[in-house]
This record gives sequence, C-alpha cells and structure tokens, in this order.
Amino acid sequence: MKLIVFFLMLFCSSIECNNNHIPHPLDPLTPSEFNLIRTIILKSYKTNNLTFHYIGLHEPDKHLIQSWLSSKTKTLQPPPRQAFIIARFQKKSLEIIIDFSTHSIISTKIYKGHGYPMLTFGEQTIASQLPFSYKPFIDSLNKRELNISDVLCATFTTGFAAVVDLDEMKIVSYYDKYVIPVPKAEGTEYRASKMKPPFGPKLKGIGVSQHDDGPGFTIQGHSVSWANWVFHVGFDIRSGPIISLASIYDLEMQKYREVLYKGYISEVFVPYQDPSEEWYYTTYFDCGEYGFGQSMSSLQPFTDCPANAVFLDAYYPGSDGVPVKIANAFCIFEKSDVSLVVRAVSTVGNYDYVIDWEFKPSGSIKLGVGLTGILGIKAGTYTNTDQIKEDIYGTLLADNTIGVYHDHFFTYYLDLDIDGEANSFVKTNLETVKVKDHKTPRKSYWTTVKETAKTEADARVNIGFKPSELAVVNPNKKTKQGNTIGYRLLPGPILHPLLVNDDYPQIRGAFTNYNVWVTPYNKSEKWAGGLYVDHSRGDDTLAVWSHRDREIENKDIVLWHTMGFHHVPSQEDFPVMPTLSGGFELRPTNFFERNPVLKTKSPKPIHWPNCTSQH
Amino acid sequence: MKLIVFFLMLFCSSIECNNNHIPHPLDPLTPSEFNLIRTIILKSYKTNNLTFHYIGLHEPDKHLIQSWLSSKTKTLQPPPRQAFIIARFQKKSLEIIIDFSTHSIISTKIYKGHGYPMLTFGEQTIASQLPFSYKPFIDSLNKRELNISDVLCATFTTGFAAVVDLDEMKIVSYYDKYVIPVPKAEGTEYRASKMKPPFGPKLKGIGVSQHDDGPGFTIQGHSVSWANWVFHVGFDIRSGPIISLASIYDLEMQKYREVLYKGYISEVFVPYQDPSEEWYYTTYFDCGEYGFGQSMSSLQPFTDCPANAVFLDAYYPGSDGVPVKIANAFCIFEKSDVSLVVRAVSTVGNYDYVIDWEFKPSGSIKLGVGLTGILGIKAGTYTNTDQIKEDIYGTLLADNTIGVYHDHFFTYYLDLDIDGEANSFVKTNLETVKVKDHKTPRKSYWTTVKETAKTEADARVNIGFKPSELAVVNPNKKTKQGNTIGYRLLPGPILHPLLVNDDYPQIRGAFTNYNVWVTPYNKSEKWAGGLYVDHSRGDDTLAVWSHRDREIENKDIVLWHTMGFHHVPSQEDFPVMPTLSGGFELRPTNFFERNPVLKTKSPKPIHWPNCTSQH
Repeated sequence: MKLIVFFLMLFCSSIECNNNHIPHPLDPLTPSEFNLIRTIILKSYKTNNLTFHYIGLHEPDKHLIQSWLSSKTKTLQPPPRQAFIIARFQKKSLEIIIDFSTHSIISTKIYKGHGYPMLTFGEQTIASQLPFSYKPFIDSLNKRELNISDVLCATFTTGFAAVVDLDEMKIVSYYDKYVIPVPKAEGTEYRASKMKPPFGPKLKGIGVSQHDDGPGFTIQGHSVSWANWVFHVGFDIRSGPIISLASIYDLEMQKYREVLYKGYISEVFVPYQDPSEEWYYTTYFDCGEYGFGQSMSSLQPFTDCPANAVFLDAYYPGSDGVPVKIANAFCIFEKSDVSLVVRAVSTVGNYDYVIDWEFKPSGSIKLGVGLTGILGIKAGTYTNTDQIKEDIYGTLLADNTIGVYHDHFFTYYLDLDIDGEANSFVKTNLETVKVKDHKTPRKSYWTTVKETAKTEADARVNIGFKPSELAVVNPNKKTKQGNTIGYRLLPGPILHPLLVNDDYPQIRGAFTNYNVWVTPYNKSEKWAGGLYVDHSRGDDTLAVWSHRDREIENKDIVLWHTMGFHHVPSQEDFPVMPTLSGGFELRPTNFFERNPVLKTKSPKPIHWPNCTSQH
Repeated sequence: MKLIVFFLMLFCSSIECNNNHIPHPLDPLTPSEFNLIRTIILKSYKTNNLTFHYIGLHEPDKHLIQSWLSSKTKTLQPPPRQAFIIARFQKKSLEIIIDFSTHSIISTKIYKGHGYPMLTFGEQTIASQLPFSYKPFIDSLNKRELNISDVLCATFTTGFAAVVDLDEMKIVSYYDKYVIPVPKAEGTEYRASKMKPPFGPKLKGIGVSQHDDGPGFTIQGHSVSWANWVFHVGFDIRSGPIISLASIYDLEMQKYREVLYKGYISEVFVPYQDPSEEWYYTTYFDCGEYGFGQSMSSLQPFTDCPANAVFLDAYYPGSDGVPVKIANAFCIFEKSDVSLVVRAVSTVGNYDYVIDWEFKPSGSIKLGVGLTGILGIKAGTYTNTDQIKEDIYGTLLADNTIGVYHDHFFTYYLDLDIDGEANSFVKTNLETVKVKDHKTPRKSYWTTVKETAKTEADARVNIGFKPSELAVVNPNKKTKQGNTIGYRLLPGPILHPLLVNDDYPQIRGAFTNYNVWVTPYNKSEKWAGGLYVDHSRGDDTLAVWSHRDREIENKDIVLWHTMGFHHVPSQEDFPVMPTLSGGFELRPTNFFERNPVLKTKSPKPIHWPNCTSQH
C-alpha cells in the first residue's frame, strides 16, 4: 500500500498541484485517479490477482455537462466524477463504476456474454513469452536450426478461433505444419540510424516559426481555443483521441454555437484475406481488441509534428491498474494554410495510424487518417512470381515474403449537436429531371429532393452508388433566408465489405455493412463492435442496435461513418509503408448566414525567406 | 513595324539575354517568340485586323524530346522549335504552324467545323461594352431606375444558343423579360480592405523559413529538381500549368526513371442546372472556351502561397498577339510534411480554381484542385424559402439571390510513361470468393483478378461501383520479385454526369461519361472537349476518339481522369465560397523494389519555437 501512496503523491506534485486549471468534467482520468481506482478495487476484492482491461471516464449525462457549461462563470459544481472499469477476476469480466467524490464502488456487474475485454499489454507480453518454455516449440526451432534469440513471438487476437487461454496463461494447442525458408533480412531494415550508403536525396526541410508572443491557440488543461473554435481534447485507453464540445463563434449571433458534442474513432476493423488455417482468424478489431489509446506513440517532434507544435501527455492504466505515461501523446499545431490540427499516432501491432482532427475558420472540421508502418506479412516458398501457380492471397514483396491482402475500416462516432441536441438526418438526393415539354431547349437537368430519415432504417447509407448530400440538421432552426441549418458529411475514401454477410468476421464487423448509420443517442452505445470485442459473436454491434429501428427525427442523434481502404500490398509498402492518407470533412451547410471567413482578420507575414515575388 | 521591333528588343533584354539557361524544348513560348509570331502572321496576311485566339508551343514529337534528353550532355541540337496558332480572319478560323528557326509559316489550314476557338479577353471586353450603347438596353435600365454606373455586363459562352456575334461585334438579339428586385448589396462585400467591424477572430499565423543556403529545390529556367524528382513546369494559354518529363531517381538502379511524360487539366466542364431560357445554355467549358492559362491570377505571397515560396511568371498572347505578362503566375514551395508543391490559381469568370501538383519522395504525385470564388447567382423575387412554391433550381442565398445548382468536372490529361513509352492499363478487380468446401472455417474472402485492357472500350471506367485498383503498368519490365512495375490512380471525389446522354450539353461534354478513359498517344488528341469548343457539337471529343476502339495494350497510352463535384450551393458559399478541396494521387505500385523513402535523409530541424516536447 505504501507504493500506491507514493505514486499518488508523485503524480499529484507534477500534474495537479502545479497546474491550477479547473478540471473539466470530460478531462481524461488522471494518474492519481487511476491509482485511487486500483486501491479501491484491490481492497474491495481483497486480491492483487485481478487484471484491469479498461478504465475510462464514466461520463456525466449530457444534460449535466450542458448545465455546467452554460453556467461556467457561476459557481455550479461540476457533475460528479466517476470511472468505468472492466476487470478480469476469477475468469469473470467485472464491470465496476467508481465515484470519486465518495471514493466508493457504486455499481458492480458480472458480464455474461461471449466476448472478452480488450487485451492488456501485460498479458500480451507474458503470453508471447510462453512458447520459449514450451518443449514442442523449442523442438520446432531446432528442426529449423533457428536460435531462440532470432525469434520473436507476437500475440494475435483469434477472431472466432482459440489458441492461448489468457486466464490460465497456458498454451492449449500447438501445431507445427510447414517448414518454409526464413525470409532474408536483406532490404528489411527501416531504422534511420541503421541505414547504410548509398543514401537517397538529402532533404533540407523548412522551418516553421510563430509570432514572439506565442502560438495562435491557447490550451487550458485539455480545452483548446483557436480562431473561432473552442473544443476539448480527451483521451481514452480504447479509442485514443476524443474531441468534445466543439463549438464555433458566430459573429452575427455574437455567441458560440454547438457543432460536435463528441467524436472519436469507435472501431478499426482489419480483416485479412488469407483463408488458410494459419491466417483465416486474423480479423483484427484494433480499438476493441488492442486499444487505440494504449497503443498511442510518443510523437517525435519535427518528424511526426512540425516545429511549431505543442505537445500533451496522456496516461492509461496498466493491467495492474498502475498508470502508464505516454509522453507527447498529442501534438497541436497551426498550418500555414490557416487551420489548427490535433494529431495522435496509434501503433497497433505492425501498423501506425496517424489520426488528425483539423479545424478551419470556415467551420469545417477535417478528419484525417494516415496509414503507415509494417505490413502484415507471411513466409512463403516463393522468390519470384513466375513460381506461383496458386492464389497466395497477397503480393510477393521480397524473397519468401508475402504481404497479405486486407482491409482497414475506420468507424467514427460523431455525436453532432448542431445548434442543440434535437437534430435530424437529411439526404439531399440529386435527381435527373427529363424534360418532356418544350419549355426549354434542354432535354434534362438535375434538381434536389430532400428526404428526412424517420427511423434508423432510413439512415443506413452506402456511399457512392447514387449522388446524395448527407447532412445532420437542426430542424428547429432556420437561417434568415429560411434554410435549415446543418452540417454536411463530405466523404473521403469509401469501401464496402467484400465478405459475405453471414461470414463470422463480417457478423462481428457488421457495423461496416453501411458507410453511414444514425442512431438515437444512447450513453451505452459507444463501441461499434460492442463493449466486449475479443471472441465476440456480433450480438452487441451497431448493426444490432440499428435493427431496433428507433425513431431518429428531431432527436439527439449520433452519426456513425465508416471509411477506409482495401489494401493490395505493393513492394513499396515493404518493409515500411509510405503513408497512405484519407479522410472526410464535416462542413457547415446553411449553418451560417454567409461565409464566416470574410470577417476573419488574416495573419501578418513573419518571414519572407525566399520572396522572389514581384508584388 | 517599329513598334514590333521595339517589343522584341525589350523582352530580349529582360528575359533571354540576361538569363543564360539553355532553353528547354518544352519551355512555354517567350514574349519575343509571341512578338515574332505576330510579326510573321500580320505581315503574311497583310492586315492588322486578325484576332489571335490561341498561340501555344507546337511540341516536338516525343521521340525527338527523348533523344534530346538522353544525349543532353552531348552536343545534340534541341528539336526544331515551332508554334501552333489559331486566329480568326475574315470570319474564318485559321490554323497556322510557324517554325522559329526559319522564321516562317510552315503550314496553314482553314477549319471547316461547327466550333469556334477560345474566347479572347479583347473580344469579351468589347462585347460586354456593347449593351451600353444599345438603345433597348438603356431603355431597360431606365425602366428599372438603374444607373449605368451600377451595372456590369459580362460575357457568357452560349453553349448551343447564340446571342452576340463576335465576328460582327453586334448585338444580334435582345429580350427584356422580367423585372426582378435588385438584390441588396448588404452582406455581399468580400474585399478584406472594405470590411467593417465587428471582426472575427484575428489569426496570428505562422512563419515558414528555410536553411540559410536557400530552398531545398532548384529551378533552372522551367526545369525543377527537388529530392529524387526532376520535372518541367510549362504553361499554355488554354490549359494553364503543364507538368512534363517528371522522372524519379531510383537509388538501386542509380538512374532517373520516367513517370509522367506530360500532365495538365484538359477541360473543366461546368453545366448549370436551371433549364429556363435565361440559364439553360450556361454549360461552360472553362479551358476550351475561356482558357485556364490566360485566366491565371498573379499569386499573392503569403495569402495564396506560404512565405517560403518561389514565384515564376508566365506570358500569354493577347488577342492582338502582343504578349501579356502574368507576374507570379506559379509558386513553388516545400511543405513541412516533406513534399514539393507547384501551384497556380485560375480565375475563370466568377470561380477561382487552385491547381496543385505535389511531389513526394515516396514517388507519389498528388494532384489537387481547390474551388473558391464567387458563385454563379441569379436574381429572384424571393426573400425566404417559405415563399417558394416551385423549383428554383438552386438555393436561396440572400434576399433575391439564388445560387444555381451546377457541376464541376475536371478532366486531366495524364500521359504516363512508366519506365518507357510502351505501357498497358490494368484493372485489378477485388472479387469475393465464396468458400464451398470445408478447407477453411471462413465462408468468404476476397482476392484479386487482373484484367489488361486490350482496346479503348476495355478502359472506360466509372469509379465507385465496384472495387478495383486502376494502374498504368509497363508490361515489359518487372521487379526482381517478378511483379509488373506500374503506377496506380487513387481517386478522390468522383462524380458522374446527371444529364441524359443525348442532351446537347452532355453530347458536348461526353468526355465526362466515364471517370477514366485510355487512348493511344496521338499528338493531336490534347483537348477532351475538342480543339474548337465554343459552339461545338461534340464531334471532336475524347468520347468520339475513344469510339474508334483502338488497341492500347503495350503501347504509348494516355490516361484521362475526370473528378469533381456536384455543387448544391449553401449560404456559406456566399458572397465568396470557402475553399472546397479535392484531388487524386498517382502512386507507385511495384515500381520500386522497396519503399524508396527509407534511404532519404531526413531534414534537420531549423526552428523550435514552441517545443514543449519531453524528448
């Protein structure tokens, strides 16, 4: 117990005591809160043998946040601060809610379903060491004349298969099927420090600077304000970055207007397309199984973020409940084409995902994803495509090295509250009108037909098949001209599942069956793949919730958007993939009376290093 | 004649004599060359009453350019330099080729078709003044109690209608049909200098700087080299920017490898969707009718381009043949996420198009388009949507102001020569395989099926309806692993025409019927809408050429790609639209043996103004 008190004091001194900002009710849990949770739970269960799989803020109800926000200058107490915990104890998944004001457990539930909580780094580390003390595995290495020191074992979620029992921490089955030549190391080096000549072009790069009085944005705790925007940057072990309470100042109305109550990546589904026994189960759910938040990397200044970036740390709970720090987990920076970016990089297994939220004075929010990192590869007997007479389910990238076909589906949770909670989802369909009379020399033109979604079924959309503008509007508010105020979704790279609907991975990933879904706001519907994703059977996905076909017109609604990429690897993606970028835009549509940028005062130039201009 | 000689000397002294770079055979025509052309032609036709509608480089044949390039260090003479001219003389369109080495006309042809050449600024200026000396028009103004000084007339191409005869320069028909309240000026100001309080947020902005020894790129004449790229930046009065001879250095092969022989925007089709008599004909072809090159704006440093940009001028021929300078027509700058951008802005009538070519050390070329400027609006009687009981073919943006529905189709000409001229177009289709046996627990997976286009018909693709990767490959070259080397097209915003195929505007714009076409290289097939677009009847479009269904396998081929936006205006787009961006990527796919970026030496940081990082 002394250790815990020590930690409490340590983090208190570095974070809370020296930082006199008032905590925001949506601030991520602090190290001292993680330690408090650990103390309370281990004491309550009288054990040290309990694993923490998820600890996150148990958010106050929206109306409490809204009341707190609207009376911020007054003395209203912030809503009670609570945490939601999923822990494994005696082979059961416990769901616990802790209240910080009373330092007590206020709710406990034992989960009865098929799924398992997110994997912890702790259990993955132990599990990946198990083979090295397992005789049949040692025999397999000897058979291949491999040294133990040259071999790395990694842990993969099993989709709907099962090999290692994480509760027992034993290897429950083992096969040694093929002996395939080990791919050569040649050409696989990707660490800059280990590179040998000849080198490619040396880039000079550019510098980025700011006015002497500091950056153009301010950060108070986790609240950011810049230009006409204010928003809150949160963090969760499972989702990674969370942007909340994004509001934009309307100069004509002389007030901030709500746009986004909360937005984050709810799930990333990565099904591989090799049906063989060794690969068929590799259908990863990067948030629900591995945790986008705990996988976030410390950002490298200048490499991951430009020189004018400001950095923020994050803390996640280890499997023992002790907080782990991710230094420089976020960076926030201005771009020269006038926008503000919040960036994080999540390294899930082999892949690196660059997650950007970009705010523009026009009211647009651009959500970007960049994919880089190491491909999912498998060994093969081939060294040239000439030798291949069967489907290898991938691309031959190097000798004995195959990059397996796969998809990346990114499903965003977007609780837009456009000028208030009561919103509707409207499709503006572009329809061809064929001219039958002779009133015009034209034979055709297109016009728009608006369609308001009444229930969830009306709001399931696969993008790309017919021209339609998708918007979340506030049906109770109009511009002076009478147009309904709203925000549009401008899609980026779109993909549709290629697995059949009743295939096991696709049942679990059924939330990708549409690019757009709209649900009524429900505090418990946060994770598109379900609360328990590992070993899940798809009984708690967005597709299941949407099947209830609830009413969504003029209600507090949530927009779910899936974008992404089919990935046929190419040799350039090896050994590390050049960033592949995509994203989408949330853009005001009749939200403002007119272009809000015109009244924005342009920045003054700072440096003109290179000005050959004749102006 | 003295005047002409004077011009020749003037430009010679400022451009050619002081600039000792060796002219590149693809350099745009110089002021002295324009003047020479004018002298030769006016002398030959013994007139001053001839209008120059197009003057551009008559490019040498590809094999001549290639020979010149490959023997650049030796003493090979550059190929003969020639110009192609379209002039109107005695109500006829003349096509003239001039050779600069002999100072002579080497070919003359009289065009016999339906179309007319690109409009000149000169005739547009005169035509737009005609109404002010036309009695019925003055009467109309008086009827509305309008002052002449408050009225601006603009010239619009007439699609398949006809109102002003530009050869006669007379008004040939006139209607005064409706009296509609003049929209108020309130809220229409967009000039920063005229803005009145209250102002919005004041942006501080950031500075951009570079190493003391200059930028990371070099420009010699119009040839640019940066990182592993070399390319040539050309200019044409009709297309605007032309990127040619883009090659990338391959470190493993120790040589530059060809990627793009030539790329430019061939046409921009903007059909409006109001079928009424006043609007039905507004179906603009912004390159073929108005000229993307002559419409290019002088870029404003810091506003249009960041502070580290280098600027280049351009020259186009006026309608009298005298060269007109566009100062700062191009800017070239590095971005902090490691890329080089070539930018131009073309202001065609009311719209501003930001055209970007972005090169990355990974081998990717990103082609971007940003749309901003003033909407095409019409007057209406309405001040609120409540009053509207009919289709107004647009959005009520302000009192009496309707933003008319329209499209922007951008058609790019991309003569990719992937490691040589003989290329093929390959579709890699992603196809679901349903598992029938029980060899795998999966019920399905996807795999790839490659399809090489044999003829033009095989290569017509509408993107978005089935998953497919589109690539131009060199079927004669493979990587060591045996993969065919190539470049992929990663599409951005895609649109399909909504007009019926036999509607007049769509017959003229039939090149938008597919997002992708591939044609065998043909020097004369440059303009997707035909050489003569004004009043065209669609008999010389890409769709017509493609109908010949020529063989395209393992040949010198051209990829044509159409992207763009349907535009339902919103109030934010008024009075000036916040930039709407889109683009696509040309990305190496098995072009390199492995990721070429890993051997690129990263730039060193210059400034760390704001580094709160803990590293």
